[in-house]
Formats: sequence, C-alpha cells, structure tokens
Amino acid sequence: MEHESPRTVRIALGSRSYDILVGPGLIAGAGREIARRLPGARAAIVTDETVAGLHLPALLASLGAAGLEATPIVLPAGERTKSFEQLVALVDRLLELRLERGDAVIALGGGVIGDLAGFAAGIVKRGMRFVQVPTTLLAQVDSSVGGKTGINSPRGKNLVGVFHQPDLVIADTSVLDTLAPREFAAGYAEMVKYGLIDRPDFFAWLEENRPAIFAGGAQRAEAVAQCCRAKAVVVEEDEREDGRRALLNLGHTFGHALEAGVAYDPARLVHGEGVAIGMALAHRFSARLGLCPPEDAARAAAHLEAAGLPTRIGQIPGAGFTCEALMGKIAQDKKVKRGRLTFILTRGIGQSFVSDDVDPAKVEAFLKDEIDAR
Amino acid sequence: MEHESPRTVRIALGSRSYDILVGPGLIAGAGREIARRLPGARAAIVTDETVAGLHLPALLASLGAAGLEATPIVLPAGERTKSFEQLVALVDRLLELRLERGDAVIALGGGVIGDLAGFAAGIVKRGMRFVQVPTTLLAQVDSSVGGKTGINSPRGKNLVGVFHQPDLVIADTSVLDTLAPREFAAGYAEMVKYGLIDRPDFFAWLEENRPAIFAGGAQRAEAVAQCCRAKAVVVEEDEREDGRRALLNLGHTFGHALEAGVAYDPARLVHGEGVAIGMALAHRFSARLGLCPPEDAARAAAHLEAAGLPTRIGQIPGAGFTCEALMGKIAQDKKVKRGRLTFILTRGIGQSFVSDDVDPAKVEAFLKDEIDAR
Repeated sequence: MEHESPRTVRIALGSRSYDILVGPGLIAGAGREIARRLPGARAAIVTDETVAGLHLPALLASLGAAGLEATPIVLPAGERTKSFEQLVALVDRLLELRLERGDAVIALGGGVIGDLAGFAAGIVKRGMRFVQVPTTLLAQVDSSVGGKTGINSPRGKNLVGVFHQPDLVIADTSVLDTLAPREFAAGYAEMVKYGLIDRPDFFAWLEENRPAIFAGGAQRAEAVAQCCRAKAVVVEEDEREDGRRALLNLGHTFGHALEAGVAYDPARLVHGEGVAIGMALAHRFSARLGLCPPEDAARAAAHLEAAGLPTRIGQIPGAGFTCEALMGKIAQDKKVKRGRLTFILTRGIGQSFVSDDVDPAKVEAFLKDEIDAR
Repeated sequence: MEHESPRTVRIALGSRSYDILVGPGLIAGAGREIARRLPGARAAIVTDETVAGLHLPALLASLGAAGLEATPIVLPAGERTKSFEQLVALVDRLLELRLERGDAVIALGGGVIGDLAGFAAGIVKRGMRFVQVPTTLLAQVDSSVGGKTGINSPRGKNLVGVFHQPDLVIADTSVLDTLAPREFAAGYAEMVKYGLIDRPDFFAWLEENRPAIFAGGAQRAEAVAQCCRAKAVVVEEDEREDGRRALLNLGHTFGHALEAGVAYDPARLVHGEGVAIGMALAHRFSARLGLCPPEDAARAAAHLEAAGLPTRIGQIPGAGFTCEALMGKIAQDKKVKRGRLTFILTRGIGQSFVSDDVDPAKVEAFLKDEIDAR
C-alpha cells in the first residue's frame, strides 16, 4: 500500500458542497476522514456480497479505529438489486437501526450499491448523511460525482430516484486492483469520455499514460482525480441536469440503445462498452455529417481499441441488431422533440456539443451502414 | 360561487419559488393557472375516492377547457394509503403514462394525497412538476406549504419522504364547505397555532372572526392566506428544518404522543385535535413553569374550546392514558438530547420559543396532574 497524500477534488454546490478524496490505500484512513466531517454520527455500511468479501473488513477496521459505530448491510450483487423491493427492505433496515438524519449511510461498492444506498439515504427521514466509497473505476469517475441516485423500474433503468449529494467520497484507487480487466476497461471508457467532450489535452495524456493507469501507478489516481474534476465542473454549472450536463451523455444515446438491444445482458455488453461503441459511433456520425475530421474519429476509436474496448456494433457477441429496433430504442430515450433527435455530436477530439436538431433519417442511414459493416 | 380575485402568497425559495393562490371557487380557473405556469405539460391527477366524487369533475373540466391533457388516478381514502405499497403502484402508473420531468402531478385531496403524490412526483425521473389542490383546511394551511412529502412506515409516521416544493398551490376555500365540522375544526387548530407561535394580533383577529371563518365568508380566505404567509416566513428561513422551523411543532410533541396513544384511531382523535390539546398543554405547562401568565393559557384554551376543539386529555373518548405511556412516546419523538427534552414553550399568546432543556421529571409531574384532572 502506498502512502502518498490523497488528491482532493472539491465539489462546490453551496451548502451541499463536498470533497472527493482520491488515492491509493485510502480505505485505511476512511474512519478518520468520516469522523472528522460527521462528528458523533453512527453509520450503516451498505455493500454487496462480492465487495464485502474483499473490502468490508478493512473499512470496518478503519471505522472502528476512529470510534465510529457502524453496522454492515450486505445485499446481493448485481443490477437486479437496484429494485423497489431492495429499496423498501434497505429503508426498513435503516429505520430499524434507529439512525437519524445526522447519521451516515456509507455505500461501499460500485454504481448499483451507490445508486441504491444514495436513494435510501435521500428518503429516510427526508435525507440522511451519505458517504460513498466507490470500488469500481466507473463508480469512481462517474456515479460518485453529481448526486444522482436511483433504482430501475420494470419500465426502464434509473427511472426512479432523487438528487442527493454525498457528504464525502473516498475513491481508493488500490481497490481497483481487484477488478476484472473487462470491468476496468469499461470504466476507462468513461475516462476517455471526459477527454472527448472538451479536454483534448487530457485525451492526449490518456493516450500516453494508458498502460500506467491500467497498471495502477500514480497516474491512475491522477486520472481519476482529473475525471472527477471534469465532471464536477459540469455538475456545478448544472446540478439538476437542465442544460450543459447533457454533454456527459456523449456516446450514451447510441450506447443505451445497444444496452437495451441486448436486454442489459452483461455477458454481451456492459455499460462502459456500450458507451465506447456509442462514442465511436458519435464521432463517425459527426464525420459523416461533415462536422468532424475523419482522422479524429479514427483516433478516438483507435484509443478505445487499444484499451481493449469494442468500437463497432458487429463486435457485440450474439444475434445481430436491426436498424428498426435501434431507432425505436433511441426514440424512447427521452431525447425526441417534434420529430428531431437530440444528440451529442463533435467537431473533433475534445470538441463535443449538444445538437437538438438531428434528422432521424440520417441517423437511420448511418446505423444501417454500421450494422452491415461487420 | 364567488368571483373575487384570489389572494396570492409567494413562497420565495430561489429557483424553487412558487405561488399559493387562495380564494373561493378557484378550481374553476385551475386549468388556466396551471397551463400558464407549465405550458405544454401533460398531467396526472392523484386523488382519493371521497374527493373524486366531490371535486374531480370540476377540476377535469377546468383542465380540459385550458387544453391540458390529464389522467385521474383514484386511490383509497385514508391514512393507510400513505404506504410504500401505494407509492410503488403510483410511481408505476405515472411511468406507464410516460410522463416526463416537465409534466405535472396534481394532488387533489387532503394531506394524505398531497404527501403521497408529492413524494411520487419527487422521485419519478428524479423530480417532476407538482401542483397541489388541497381540499381540507389542514392541507391548505399546513401540508401544502413547505415541501414536505412522504409516507408512513410500519416503524412510524412520515419516516420516509423527500423535500419537494410544488410549482403551484391552489387553495379553493369553497371546497371546505364539503368538510365535516369536526374535520374543519381540526384544521382550524393549525390556524390558531400560527397566532399562538408569534402572531398575537392574528390570534385576536381569529377570536373575533372565528364564526365568519367557519361560515365561509371572505374572512375564511383571508385567514387561510394569513396562515400560508406565516408558514412561508418560517419555511423561507429554514427550508430543511434545522432550526426555527421547529416552532411549527408547537403542540405537536404532546399531540403526537396522544395520537400514538390512541394508535392513530381517527374515531378517537384526529391530528388537529391532538394539536389542540397539545397547544393547551404547552401553555398550561409553561404557566406552571412560571414562564407564561395563567390567564394567557386560559385564553388560548378558551378559544380552542369555542371552536369545538378538545383541550384536555380527559376529553379523548375511550380508555385512559397512563403517564408512563405518554412519557415513553414523547421520548421516542426524536426530541431527546442527553436526558433533556426539546419542547416548544411560551411566554404568552404569540410568544412561543424552542427550549431544549426541559426537565423530564417536571413534564411527568405535570402530565400526571393533567391525566387526573378529568
């Protein structure tokens, strides 16, 4: 375990401001950091069976050393845990523990645990304190910044939830060593996204430092901190997602359609992989519209491929996609206004923009060619 | 139906500011007011079986005339509707209607409907637009101001919810004519509360105008508007209930204990009646502590009694209360700190204050005498 001092990213949201601490080995000091910010608080640690086996003993030891009384609540691992059923059970457990508003829910896990625990923290007693200890790369650079919490409904993903900002996020970059390579790469796709949105220098830095980030050096913590900062800038401007925050959806309109197309089967496609293909598609589509130099689209795709990520629809294992099905999913993605589609397009590496005037016929023709290009 | 122009109470909460319109016959113009504030929105009207029979046709006609597409969702009447089960069903229904963030949930009913519908509006798509059309006096002067929403848990009332401010409140004072006298009186107790907290002039005005308010004259609308304004001042200062907002709990610590003591059986005691007895107790207890002139305590009780409200524990029908049981309930009311109780006490009519240093032994001795004084 390394002992450099952590990087601190401050999220400035007035009375809801908070710190993200980023660095290797931070769980060992988590108790001290939490106790300092929430003196006298009790805590419940919400985690899943997989993460509990790996990191719960270290977190409990750290909280205990800081004199923080904490009760673990261990849930099943997997996306199905983001349900009303699990939410109701979790809320009841928190009430049973007689936790008060000033007490803390600590989410130890990936996006599923963070979203569910954050939602519960947001509604018990109309809002408890909330601490995130994200254990996946995706959660460290995406889900833990911005205050979005929620669960899935049988009618769609993330359709129910609240905005509930955490009081502290502890991103321990050492825990990422326990991730499967495919899961690490999926999180890396969201890292690349920040470069592609509006940080060409960061994209170039990633091209150079990708191997070191995967290997776990100081560059990994630096990259996570940079991404949190990048997302923070957007969230601070647009906490409730009315405008500029839409840029964070780069690659997500195509990506969500692909995820829905495989019925969210993680064996075929995980979220980050969908975003990787979606970003490659957004760049090639922008090139086809004459907005983006083709060499920039190729450069974006090349970097994603170097990281082991898919960039073409044909790379998704299993049965083929039809253009009609994908267009149908895109139309459902809440981004249609008077027959025109809202998309994130780009003029080149780090030059993305929101377009709410995309001709569906052009998207359809483009997708047809992409599906055929196997 | 009268046609004077409505009183408007503005709740100033920055980007979450909204208007409360108060006056007789306002439902007839509700569609126009909603369409003006939420152009292009679709709506779901959440109501209960009792209120639907009385006021839903008028509201639907008004929305239709304004070109507002609205779907009614009719739930069972009564406190049991404030449950996770009903919340999940309501959320699913709103999603089934494919309503978006910019669309509106309209709550047509009393506190139960407002609390449940507001909670659903607060969590569907992480927050939809919300309009309240309160149909009880209690909801018009209390529940519809302040943004508190929520449901009950088997572990206690209102333990789960969010703060979600409405976009508009339409308090049609004519609909109060359909209330049972006991229900009107219970709402009136919360009106008296605003006078007793810090508005001695308003209390004196109520003493003079009570018969007119019950009869339904212009004084009724004036009284409702005054109460909304009084609550607004408190909420604006303390939106998330950390400090001064506690004054709104005048009469509620004793009141909640009494409600819990009858197991929330509305045949024995409704909330407003519990508050009436609680306020009389708070005044007599303050007098006993030498804080409040005994004649002020007598005056507060006399006014509540004139309105047909109970002011003594012995007036609650059914089996007697024990001092031990009441003290136990008070201790559970989240207001104990290091063995001292937090109470709202008073120095006289309109001179209430928060005391977090009340000796439980003195409360117990006082309650014992009150229970014996049949």
